[in-house]
Amino acid sequence: MSLRYLTARVAQQIDEELMSQAGAFSLDQLMELAGLSCAQALARVYDRNKYPNVLVCCGPGNQGGDGLVAARHLGMFGYTPTIFLPKRLKTQCDNMKIKTIDDTTALRDALPTTNVILDAIFGFSFKGPIRAPFDSVLPLLTDSRLPIVSVDIPSGWDVEEGNVEGVGLRPDVLVSLTAPKLGVRSFSGIHFLGGRFIPKSLEEKFELNLPEYPGFDQVVELKE
Amino acid sequence: MSLRYLTARVAQQIDEELMSQAGAFSLDQLMELAGLSCAQALARVYDRNKYPNVLVCCGPGNQGGDGLVAARHLGMFGYTPTIFLPKRLKTQCDNMKIKTIDDTTALRDALPTTNVILDAIFGFSFKGPIRAPFDSVLPLLTDSRLPIVSVDIPSGWDVEEGNVEGVGLRPDVLVSLTAPKLGVRSFSGIHFLGGRFIPKSLEEKFELNLPEYPGFDQVVELKE
Repeated sequence: MSLRYLTARVAQQIDEELMSQAGAFSLDQLMELAGLSCAQALARVYDRNKYPNVLVCCGPGNQGGDGLVAARHLGMFGYTPTIFLPKRLKTQCDNMKIKTIDDTTALRDALPTTNVILDAIFGFSFKGPIRAPFDSVLPLLTDSRLPIVSVDIPSGWDVEEGNVEGVGLRPDVLVSLTAPKLGVRSFSGIHFLGGRFIPKSLEEKFELNLPEYPGFDQVVELKE
Repeated sequence: MSLRYLTARVAQQIDEELMSQAGAFSLDQLMELAGLSCAQALARVYDRNKYPNVLVCCGPGNQGGDGLVAARHLGMFGYTPTIFLPKRLKTQCDNMKIKTIDDTTALRDALPTTNVILDAIFGFSFKGPIRAPFDSVLPLLTDSRLPIVSVDIPSGWDVEEGNVEGVGLRPDVLVSLTAPKLGVRSFSGIHFLGGRFIPKSLEEKFELNLPEYPGFDQVVELKE
């Protein structure tokens, strides 16, 4: 039985069940584990000695929260994260002495010293068109030719159809959360699965056929 | 500079700062990471093939919450946890198909098939005397001669003075959270530090002199 790729609707249903009375997870719990998965996946591929400077790009929705949590863990792992966030969700960053930037000019200035980008801009509830400032942020990130780690769905891709408009990021690494979405079926880079918190009952109900995570890791690499 | 051992008061202050507006952590976030640390530490020492059945003993306070989170992660790691909890905090357990028991007779019956015990009964805010049912639970666990992994402070120990009354558990493994407490200075078993979420600013303010965590682990072993 092969891994199921999710529609946006099913991904949303799973999230709702996790946070329902039956699942009993809080958003904070899920976000903490999701962000930790992303940080671990990035750390797996990009050694902190060679890629110390991580630019974490956060969007306005829940996925931006995953990005903030990931940045905090990356700081703990010895990286120097800089966070691009258009909204002011930054108390934790300030306290962790993580630099934040909040306009496109500052983002452009940060790219030359960046080693790797964590893309937590749009998640599985993304629907185009891409609004400002992200319509200019995505081309900036692409043109930088830096390595990119995308969370769940590369920003700019349709959740079910993929990069049909051609305006999406082209990440080297993808961290799918809970289960991969239909739109990334053709993704050919390094693909991790993270978000190790799906109860067996939910996995069966949605026929996810998840692979086994190794040991006590929070991520598992998906291979063809 | 050596690692600082905390009084109950300082441990409490650090927790408050983490959850203050400056720290901006929610209790859920801290509990998630603390519980994950405990699960990882147990998995480090007790291989799931040899020690599949883990009895997680939860107390009535916050540490019981750490125990529940740890049990959930242990389930994810392939162990078969059984939870002893005197209160009904069990929705997540039921949903994860984790067996719970809530009286001392059932606990006694569960011991013969248990391979290792996770002790999340009392934490750093413990003050004696030990109330029922724990006054009978602790001797039961001790008499079982099973391996015990204690969270933060072995249950029954004074947080600052240690096992002065002699009624506390005698764990093989200890997982101190954020920083070890004064009472465990003389602990001679396998000692892990977990709770990798202290911002540098707090570490400096409280002169914790924490050791470096390896890679992206959530625990680090403390050695003399």
